[in-house]
Amino acid sequence: MRIGVDVQGGDFAPQAVLDGVKLFLTENNKAAETTLYLFGNKRIIDNYIAENNLGGYNFVVIASENDIEMAESPTRAIATKRKSSIVQGIVYHQNGEIDAFLSAGNTGALLAGVMSTVKPINGILRPCISSPMPKFDGTYGVLLDVGLNADCKPEYLEQFAILGAIYAKEVQNVENPKVALLNIGEEPEKGNLLTKATHKLLKDNPHINFIGNLEPNYLFCKHEADVIVSDGFTGNIALKEAESIYKLIKERGVKDDFFEIFNYENYGGTSILGIDATVLIGHGHSSPVAIKNLILHAIEIAESHVRESFKEFFANATN
Amino acid sequence: MRIGVDVQGGDFAPQAVLDGVKLFLTENNKAAETTLYLFGNKRIIDNYIAENNLGGYNFVVIASENDIEMAESPTRAIATKRKSSIVQGIVYHQNGEIDAFLSAGNTGALLAGVMSTVKPINGILRPCISSPMPKFDGTYGVLLDVGLNADCKPEYLEQFAILGAIYAKEVQNVENPKVALLNIGEEPEKGNLLTKATHKLLKDNPHINFIGNLEPNYLFCKHEADVIVSDGFTGNIALKEAESIYKLIKERGVKDDFFEIFNYENYGGTSILGIDATVLIGHGHSSPVAIKNLILHAIEIAESHVRESFKEFFANATN
Repeated sequence: MRIGVDVQGGDFAPQAVLDGVKLFLTENNKAAETTLYLFGNKRIIDNYIAENNLGGYNFVVIASENDIEMAESPTRAIATKRKSSIVQGIVYHQNGEIDAFLSAGNTGALLAGVMSTVKPINGILRPCISSPMPKFDGTYGVLLDVGLNADCKPEYLEQFAILGAIYAKEVQNVENPKVALLNIGEEPEKGNLLTKATHKLLKDNPHINFIGNLEPNYLFCKHEADVIVSDGFTGNIALKEAESIYKLIKERGVKDDFFEIFNYENYGGTSILGIDATVLIGHGHSSPVAIKNLILHAIEIAESHVRESFKEFFANATN
Repeated sequence: MRIGVDVQGGDFAPQAVLDGVKLFLTENNKAAETTLYLFGNKRIIDNYIAENNLGGYNFVVIASENDIEMAESPTRAIATKRKSSIVQGIVYHQNGEIDAFLSAGNTGALLAGVMSTVKPINGILRPCISSPMPKFDGTYGVLLDVGLNADCKPEYLEQFAILGAIYAKEVQNVENPKVALLNIGEEPEKGNLLTKATHKLLKDNPHINFIGNLEPNYLFCKHEADVIVSDGFTGNIALKEAESIYKLIKERGVKDDFFEIFNYENYGGTSILGIDATVLIGHGHSSPVAIKNLILHAIEIAESHVRESFKEFFANATN
């Protein structure tokens, strides 16, 4: 696999990203069969490689210039900074020179860049982003959308359910994934206009193994859901509140490794689902461990048949 | 103060409610100056009073019949069960015979009963319910709406901000309360259609000390907000997820009393804001301690000037 890494992206870039690259190259057995494409400041990368004696590993350096800052206006940055690490990474991926691209940089710019160059898979109304959601038994469900579509129609959520179920099957090896709708009551008639209408669509869709509404007071309990469906606003609220829990646990100095399931570093970030590309978004605060795990997550997705399964399902659905 | 208590309401009623009443009567120094109006099965209440030697305390028993079950259809129950504890409690309050009424019973029935008999305060578009939200420093902010209005317009949220600020001032003694908008980004242009429009209203309203958006990853950190504004769907999601945190902490056996700030028993429930009555909704699972604290919370609100301040503000606002 050829994985593109935005070395300039993230609050602690390029240092944290390069440290993450080093962790991957030197400690992971996937490194031998992977070529990393490092998009970033060539001088800094070359120095790092030399200082850390990484010359013998599988990587290619693609020099970037005029990189996109974290706080920049996304669309303008994408339009004007064609030599930046983000734009070059997207172009490389689009040209088939890499199998996946990941960045912990300016999320808006990454999304603007991807959405303006990569089309949604035929039949998909709205691509979305997903996140693992920890459960009490130490496993993860997948929550989607977690932020790409703040305002949704019921039909979008119906498709998120399909995307999530295919993702759970192809990437997480869950057979016949159980799908729940994030909602404020158990009963079908509970919720806002969006969730009430969505409940009906999910229940009536023969391709969805729908198990009903999931209330967030059971989110971290032993619930049955493999896939949790939500609009992007509510999903982002739920995801960020979970992050707050982890911060609080750390600040209180709780000594229980169980709570590490809430640590985003375990998975590093999220992939954009529903587009004809494999692009992953890292957390802005990404640490070296998070970057290493994001690279592994990118390999896992690139090796899976998730994109082909999306295409196949929606080609049949629209025929 | 004369506080009405629905003895038949809650998953563990009447036992847990009567135990809560006993805790209040025997342990709290507010008991001497308070008369409890106990709405419920007279035989059961009388037996309890006799068995627990509570005869000398300040209470009145109002016999109810045909009480409303937790799972009953709210509107039908309210229309047909006129002798139930909930309906009688609301009628007593409406007639000025009690200063507040509280129930941990069928929330839908309580709301249907209150909303069909008690009018919103003049000028208030939508009454709402609020909940304390714990902060890292051990204090509480107030979050509203937490479930009464699943679908909102920006103007509703603008009023929730006013209601929350008056509540924080009159009940929690916070001077010039700081108001934040629960949202998925810090910047004004972030969010869904509702929060983007609401942000502008809050910023432009001279009666609101608006400090900007609050992202849920900072919800339990040392943020500045005294009042957190949200639509009822999102607020309910955030509240229930916080409940899930507490459950998880308990299940993992974490020994840190700090996390007791997440225990709903501390405040017992929430009052309906914006109506011309003092009605409090307890948690369905209410324990005796929760009931006792709900009675104390009812006294606190009934003793405050919060309703008068609501009326005064909205009378001036509509002139």
